[in-house]
Amino acid sequence: MKFLHTADWHIGRKLNGFSLLEEQQAAFLEIMAIAKKEQVDGIVIAGDLYDRSIPSVEAVALFNEMMVEMNLKANYPILAISGNHDSATRLETGSPWLKTQDFHLHTQLSQAFEPVEILDTQFYLLPYFEPFHARQYFGDDSLRDIQSSMKLVIQKMKESFNPKKQQVLVSHFFAAGATKSESETTLEVGGLDSVPIDMLLDFDYVALGHLHYKNAITKTEKVQYSGALLKYSLSEEKQEKGVRIIELSEKKLKNTFVEIKPLRDVKRLEASFKELTDPNFYDQVEREDYLAITLTDTTVISNAIHELRHIYPHLISLERTQNERIRGEKAKKEADFVQLKPEELLKKYYQEVTDKELTKKQVQWLEAAMIETGAEK
Amino acid sequence: MKFLHTADWHIGRKLNGFSLLEEQQAAFLEIMAIAKKEQVDGIVIAGDLYDRSIPSVEAVALFNEMMVEMNLKANYPILAISGNHDSATRLETGSPWLKTQDFHLHTQLSQAFEPVEILDTQFYLLPYFEPFHARQYFGDDSLRDIQSSMKLVIQKMKESFNPKKQQVLVSHFFAAGATKSESETTLEVGGLDSVPIDMLLDFDYVALGHLHYKNAITKTEKVQYSGALLKYSLSEEKQEKGVRIIELSEKKLKNTFVEIKPLRDVKRLEASFKELTDPNFYDQVEREDYLAITLTDTTVISNAIHELRHIYPHLISLERTQNERIRGEKAKKEADFVQLKPEELLKKYYQEVTDKELTKKQVQWLEAAMIETGAEK
Repeated sequence: MKFLHTADWHIGRKLNGFSLLEEQQAAFLEIMAIAKKEQVDGIVIAGDLYDRSIPSVEAVALFNEMMVEMNLKANYPILAISGNHDSATRLETGSPWLKTQDFHLHTQLSQAFEPVEILDTQFYLLPYFEPFHARQYFGDDSLRDIQSSMKLVIQKMKESFNPKKQQVLVSHFFAAGATKSESETTLEVGGLDSVPIDMLLDFDYVALGHLHYKNAITKTEKVQYSGALLKYSLSEEKQEKGVRIIELSEKKLKNTFVEIKPLRDVKRLEASFKELTDPNFYDQVEREDYLAITLTDTTVISNAIHELRHIYPHLISLERTQNERIRGEKAKKEADFVQLKPEELLKKYYQEVTDKELTKKQVQWLEAAMIETGAEK
Repeated sequence: MKFLHTADWHIGRKLNGFSLLEEQQAAFLEIMAIAKKEQVDGIVIAGDLYDRSIPSVEAVALFNEMMVEMNLKANYPILAISGNHDSATRLETGSPWLKTQDFHLHTQLSQAFEPVEILDTQFYLLPYFEPFHARQYFGDDSLRDIQSSMKLVIQKMKESFNPKKQQVLVSHFFAAGATKSESETTLEVGGLDSVPIDMLLDFDYVALGHLHYKNAITKTEKVQYSGALLKYSLSEEKQEKGVRIIELSEKKLKNTFVEIKPLRDVKRLEASFKELTDPNFYDQVEREDYLAITLTDTTVISNAIHELRHIYPHLISLERTQNERIRGEKAKKEADFVQLKPEELLKKYYQEVTDKELTKKQVQWLEAAMIETGAEK
């Protein structure tokens, strides 16, 4: 089994007001070229096909076109799920007919337990879901977080594991210990709604979507994000984007990342206004890229943004060096904050509000409470 | 060939704030029962499947369910088009896959010219379109109205008429001379954007959508509206709703209307407040219906609407007899106005504004201009 793993297309996404439909179409054509060159047996799309639950009509038109290209024209079996950005019900439209042409698009938790078999591999397509759906599906009102829900989900999947076949899980969640970037929607605080990687090791490969950074998981080759289709925020500036080519043969895994160069890149540019407006400077720059410009000048420049837009049509932001530094520090502080464990968060909060530290007794209470709610295991 | 002709489902439509999804689902189940009883060879849906270009997620869920029932479960070939209320692009999603199971859903003008052949009949599925689309498709910039566009459309369709087969047109427009009711979106003023029935007589049957009144066309049995799925406004109060069963055999037509009783009817009720709140009165009334109540009282009744809602939970309006009479006269005047021909409209307008009548010369100019722009032919 050889398949292409991609995710987080976010069709219809905008970058600081600029439509990225052209870039998305170009990247999609690259994917098709890679699939052809690598002679894959199928294409896995691990959620967030659209950027919004109600995509624009232009986004729908592009995605409709992509679907036809992939499946009806190029004849690839498609293994896809809905992500947290997709509306499961809207995306579901037509899916029972898609299935007749080997286009498997799962949008409901209940669909996850019947594997799609292609060649020697069982694909379990688990769409993004909330604890609420798991409570409904399993009839278990105690399921209050993704972690405990996933335990039951995986347990149930294992019942249909065929020992003669390989098993691949396709899903869309935050794997505990992974590194986030700015452009993903926060799904959780602390560890309750993330899934520990150790829970996933019975699969021969786990094709994930949700995080946009392809190297978000370093712990094992078997559980991986493909990363997003494009750089969807400036924080992803340095991230290589592309797809994974996964080869599974007798449970042995080969995982190769293939880069896709975007139609227009997302980059930072730091220079003085004089340099930026000098042909000798800007002729060396990919002026069509999405550029976040930091001006090194300290004096007032009237109408800088207007003039720079003439030279750099896809200017996405304009900052001053000094402001940039302050903003960076603030952002770092916020990021540090979000990454705290719940008990650390509570300790910090108590200290900020009361100016005192938790007493030893209070810490004990807190720890007991955390164990009780299952936050720490 | 025996088929069921329905149209104007308007899934997701509301009636004075009340969701009609339950009524729509019940009516759909009636349609399925009729199709089964009549043993039809297919189901024609002549546009306005949804009420809005972006239907609610509940409307999408219901329509998805209906699609599966009709086609995948009951195995009927489906012949459907988009109407002016549908978003062609959104509705198009998945349609190339639907087609593989004989679910033909046309949303683009370009799809109208390849007939879908079922048994002895060629179905031409012409979705709602605007003159702009005809200009693009035919590369003819002179096409400024539906009438002249339709001439080319029908001409082109005729090229593929198979004399050994019967021809059915499925479309969604205002047929000239038809009677409108309140709840259709006005597509035109005067006669420019309506299609004369005489243009359509080369088809053995024309299954229309758009007008909600099943008897809107009295001129010929060959060109008919099915009417809407339900009563979608109070003005449709007296209209029977249902579907047509069309039998075509050797170009001979049998056209039977089958009524569908709604889950909750739309009705007027005129009585005094005392009567309306008297069990002897209201036990004789279908209190669950959507009721437009006219109070015959002349005195002030405080909080009447609140008290009546307790007895009549689907109260859609509350009027006084006198106000009702004034409103009726005003509405009639407006309706008369809309039905005027463009030249009559201009004459009336001129008179209202200047207090004079058009001179003989001015009338001549007007007539020449009307001929020139193709308004009168």
